[in-house]
Amino acid sequence: MPQTRGRPRSVESPTGLGTAEDVLHAAGQLFSDRGFSATSTHAIADAAGIRQASLYHYFASKNEILLALLVGTVSPSVGTARSLLATQAPAAARLWALCAWDARLLVNDRFNVGSLYLQPEVNGDYFTEFHALRRELRQAYGQLICDCGDENAVEMIDLVLGLVESVILLRRRDPDGVDDHTAGLVADGALRLISFPPQDFVAAREAGVRLLAALPDSAVRPPG
Amino acid sequence: MPQTRGRPRSVESPTGLGTAEDVLHAAGQLFSDRGFSATSTHAIADAAGIRQASLYHYFASKNEILLALLVGTVSPSVGTARSLLATQAPAAARLWALCAWDARLLVNDRFNVGSLYLQPEVNGDYFTEFHALRRELRQAYGQLICDCGDENAVEMIDLVLGLVESVILLRRRDPDGVDDHTAGLVADGALRLISFPPQDFVAAREAGVRLLAALPDSAVRPPG
Repeated sequence: MPQTRGRPRSVESPTGLGTAEDVLHAAGQLFSDRGFSATSTHAIADAAGIRQASLYHYFASKNEILLALLVGTVSPSVGTARSLLATQAPAAARLWALCAWDARLLVNDRFNVGSLYLQPEVNGDYFTEFHALRRELRQAYGQLICDCGDENAVEMIDLVLGLVESVILLRRRDPDGVDDHTAGLVADGALRLISFPPQDFVAAREAGVRLLAALPDSAVRPPG
Repeated sequence: MPQTRGRPRSVESPTGLGTAEDVLHAAGQLFSDRGFSATSTHAIADAAGIRQASLYHYFASKNEILLALLVGTVSPSVGTARSLLATQAPAAARLWALCAWDARLLVNDRFNVGSLYLQPEVNGDYFTEFHALRRELRQAYGQLICDCGDENAVEMIDLVLGLVESVILLRRRDPDGVDDHTAGLVADGALRLISFPPQDFVAAREAGVRLLAALPDSAVRPPG
């Protein structure tokens, strides 16, 4: 089998997106199926169709691969949050849009990588970048919830975030039971959680849908 | 050091509750800190202060230990759900009570064992008993939500369960950030999620608190 000099491959790129993406794809599947600790870089290289030495050309360690996967589950939502915070739409519409977008990302993520949040290893110092992005996302949720005028806004932030992230648990239990409709239900649920007035509900959702449609492609990576 | 014949111990029972409980205690901590795959039965026996051979006197395998821990996070809630379904109180009060009790169990669980739900191994056939208990619990939630009269009851079941279980994710992020107050917020949030009328809210919560206080000790293991 012919091999390209420098980065020998035993097979064609499985994702067609290049070696780094092949590695992330393989690792996402293996971490999700077997867990982080039980997966070796050797197994990842094998599944990606490359030699272990080639893997280290792209990622310094297994931790770095996990970090890249985790950052990939949060940074698109942070981009969307920044765009939504910069618009002038009503806070409830922006909150609906952020919840729906974020939940849709978790619904459509290929390997439910969000479930890796709970791997014990993620608490370590290596993952500071991931935790900083999550903090920024949480602050964006917090600001929108406060702007909606809920008098218990601060206490609601974690419940709203928890509702959005519960998509991870739903998928784990029933992989085919969640879809984009679930993401809309989650966003509706967030407005109910913060006691948003029922009479203003439909308008907020419709404005939220319009906001999502108008998001600049450059600011966000569309999920799915 | 003196040793009891048959079940030699290198140290006193760390929990004071006997060897089986020592093993569960040690395994709960190790699985939660390092993950299931990365924990050996040797390490568990070591942390429990017993020999590996003694561990196998109580548990046939590492899977059986994980199963016992998982069942321990769900069966008390199933007991509470059965008791609540058998009472004649209004459905909203019973739903509030079930959510609060269930969330309090997850809040107070020593090692956030609920986080083990997401270990990939839990999908295997070995854990059928756990999955059957979870199905029964989900059905109880479903019946109470339907009895509350929400027209979208079926779609709400997973959101309400997701909200309750999001306590697991909150604890993972901020171990000191959840307490019994959080459990009350979660139960309030569940009633808001199913669009329970705000004017009936306080009465439902007060009745829920009374229901919890009246639960028979025999039906449930009190959390905490």
